[in-house]
Amino acid sequence: MSRLFSFIGGGDGPWRIVSSRAIVGDALPAASKLRVVPGDQPQNGALWTLRGLTSNERYVTRPEKTGLLAIQPSLGRPEATCAALIPISKGDEWWALTQDERRQVFEETSGHIRIGMDYLPAVARRLHHCRDLGRPEPFDFLTWFEFAPADAPAFDDLLARLRSTHEWRYVSREADIRLERE
Amino acid sequence: MSRLFSFIGGGDGPWRIVSSRAIVGDALPAASKLRVVPGDQPQNGALWTLRGLTSNERYVTRPEKTGLLAIQPSLGRPEATCAALIPISKGDEWWALTQDERRQVFEETSGHIRIGMDYLPAVARRLHHCRDLGRPEPFDFLTWFEFAPADAPAFDDLLARLRSTHEWRYVSREADIRLERE
Repeated sequence: MSRLFSFIGGGDGPWRIVSSRAIVGDALPAASKLRVVPGDQPQNGALWTLRGLTSNERYVTRPEKTGLLAIQPSLGRPEATCAALIPISKGDEWWALTQDERRQVFEETSGHIRIGMDYLPAVARRLHHCRDLGRPEPFDFLTWFEFAPADAPAFDDLLARLRSTHEWRYVSREADIRLERE
Repeated sequence: MSRLFSFIGGGDGPWRIVSSRAIVGDALPAASKLRVVPGDQPQNGALWTLRGLTSNERYVTRPEKTGLLAIQPSLGRPEATCAALIPISKGDEWWALTQDERRQVFEETSGHIRIGMDYLPAVARRLHHCRDLGRPEPFDFLTWFEFAPADAPAFDDLLARLRSTHEWRYVSREADIRLERE
């Protein structure tokens, strides 16, 4: 399935892990390299594997999507040699909210999309969903970001702003893995 | 994972298949019995297996959920000896819509929740999602319904009303399997 990706921490891969921190909850085992591969084949030498798939948008409206599409960059830009993998879970309290309540927290209260727009086109992003894969996964979402070294401070600012939102009070586990392309 | 269920068509199971029709697209292979089992173990004697999981609501608002919770019945009522399994897929055009556009079609235009409310508490329902299981599945959704024999005409009316909505123009495959408990 072309929407499914595996993030494999181990001793091999084009991305060197420069830091790996637990923000909320347990840390991932230490690994030196990361591979991102389509699909879900068993991988030799994996210290950990996180899986997720791209899916339809859950909150964005048409005007927001039009705005995002106009300026969001693709993954794989030659100058974007820095990356971050931010796996998060949201607690049961989040998932018990209705759609209108989650949208209210996500955007009207927390400005998730508005904050993200401030860092475009510097920061490329791909969101992967893990909660409905049909087997227990350690996180609900995996977000993969790519940016140039000069934009690393801006990326830190983006994360700091998101982590200070009301939405983030629902985050029950979060890791923060920074990477550089070899 | 306790949210995952397998619907297994074959020669065994507590539900006798009394009819199986293709509404849009290919029919499922003919089977005489159905089992609904938690999880996803390989099953002997299966002619077909459909998998799906329950998840957070995608469209319902808090007032709608409050209204539904007040009158919707549970599965497994002794008198509800009739059941229906309605697997559907929606086409790429649906999944390319933004959240506000899908909600608009689903409820404001098509009245999916309002129509369903007219058949409560007669018809019990459980929705299972299949599209994001991370492997190709033949349908996007599996909806399981249970009702008493006297409410079978009402259930037919419910389906006829839903199938006449604007939302149903996005349905790219649909099957209709009717069952009776042995």
